[in-house]
Amino acid sequence: MYKDSKLRTLTKAFTWRVTATLTTMTLVLIFTGKLDTAIEVGALELIAKMLFYYLHERGWAKIGFGRIEVPSFVLWITGIPVSGKTTLGNLIYEELAKEKLKVQRLDSHDIRPLFPETGFTREEVNNHIKRVGHLASMLEKNGVITIASFVSPYAESRAFVREICKNYVEIHLDSDPEFARQYDRKGFYQKAEAEHYINVPGLDILFEHCDKTELKFDMRKTSLDEVRKEVMKFLHKRFLNV
Amino acid sequence: MYKDSKLRTLTKAFTWRVTATLTTMTLVLIFTGKLDTAIEVGALELIAKMLFYYLHERGWAKIGFGRIEVPSFVLWITGIPVSGKTTLGNLIYEELAKEKLKVQRLDSHDIRPLFPETGFTREEVNNHIKRVGHLASMLEKNGVITIASFVSPYAESRAFVREICKNYVEIHLDSDPEFARQYDRKGFYQKAEAEHYINVPGLDILFEHCDKTELKFDMRKTSLDEVRKEVMKFLHKRFLNV
Repeated sequence: MYKDSKLRTLTKAFTWRVTATLTTMTLVLIFTGKLDTAIEVGALELIAKMLFYYLHERGWAKIGFGRIEVPSFVLWITGIPVSGKTTLGNLIYEELAKEKLKVQRLDSHDIRPLFPETGFTREEVNNHIKRVGHLASMLEKNGVITIASFVSPYAESRAFVREICKNYVEIHLDSDPEFARQYDRKGFYQKAEAEHYINVPGLDILFEHCDKTELKFDMRKTSLDEVRKEVMKFLHKRFLNV
Repeated sequence: MYKDSKLRTLTKAFTWRVTATLTTMTLVLIFTGKLDTAIEVGALELIAKMLFYYLHERGWAKIGFGRIEVPSFVLWITGIPVSGKTTLGNLIYEELAKEKLKVQRLDSHDIRPLFPETGFTREEVNNHIKRVGHLASMLEKNGVITIASFVSPYAESRAFVREICKNYVEIHLDSDPEFARQYDRKGFYQKAEAEHYINVPGLDILFEHCDKTELKFDMRKTSLDEVRKEVMKFLHKRFLNV
């Protein structure tokens, strides 16, 4: 929660007083034609109203009326390995942090200290995604915007996360292993094939699409910078321009 | 993050204008002795300054200077089973929520969906407490006050949580199984003995005390309501009276 410091109130009282007293003095001068009266009224007003303004502001600081909270939301970025999820998540994080919003990134490396290593069967992956969803929803409830980026290929666990979050936005970065390999600096696909990884969407299983996905981008035709712009436009329209 | 709505600014402009224009009119009346001049100046001031005030407020809403955030902290309540941890945590939660602060309770039932069942060996308990500590520190970093209540009998994992949190406050509710049994409506101790639970502080292991514990209460001599008052006094002094 944010509060106004006494110094902020004092400074506001001063900047307002300069504007306001000059206005009063001009009005008095116009109506009376007397410069000395204008100065006398201005001088007394300066002192009296600065004090009143201070008290008025401190009183309003205790009143919640019209003080609105920017809604928090969960941005869930999904797609096959090396489709650009982490990079997009980081780009959006930076934009939102610049706007002084509370944002938490949830990528595999952020949640490693929280959840012990889990396996790669369909059930294990679903359970893992659901746990991350619980975490995202806890953060969202406390006013923290959450940007999660996980392969999360199964519609079931994504639907579960959608259900438990209030403002859930799913972004699917659509790609295919052929295309993704170009950006695969860590050699994920080569390793996956050599070591016979199981349940890799695009290789031995399908990525499960969903009709409800809010934003879908074909990464073969769209740059990450275009995606970032579209996402920010969506977030501003839906949540941020309160 | 909180923002002022346009309606709040307009309402403030109005309440301020009533105070301020009455002051101006009185001053003009005193200095000129003319009621009609006082009314004319007042009328024009009313219109001009209401507009200026609105613009002045909207401008200041964009300025961060002097807008201070109430610091978040992690309140870690520790003690043997049935020492009053959960009840105290809930009491403090209610007090802080009343003050419109963001607060998250972390009790075994809050974290069950996040962390799969863990065991009761020293190592398993330490790892579990460390994971909860990571969660608390993530919430704290995002401005959320966290109230955790766990037996957490081992000094090692409590020290770890202290290390990774910024504002960590440990509260130890000191008790013994003999005394705790009086409040043991769920029959924990009876069950623990009958089913030979392992690593129960007070029964087969010792609760590890720590010199750094910020607040320590002897529950045999102190009521939970007295503890609540002391804790709130501490929190106000240390964090909340910004």
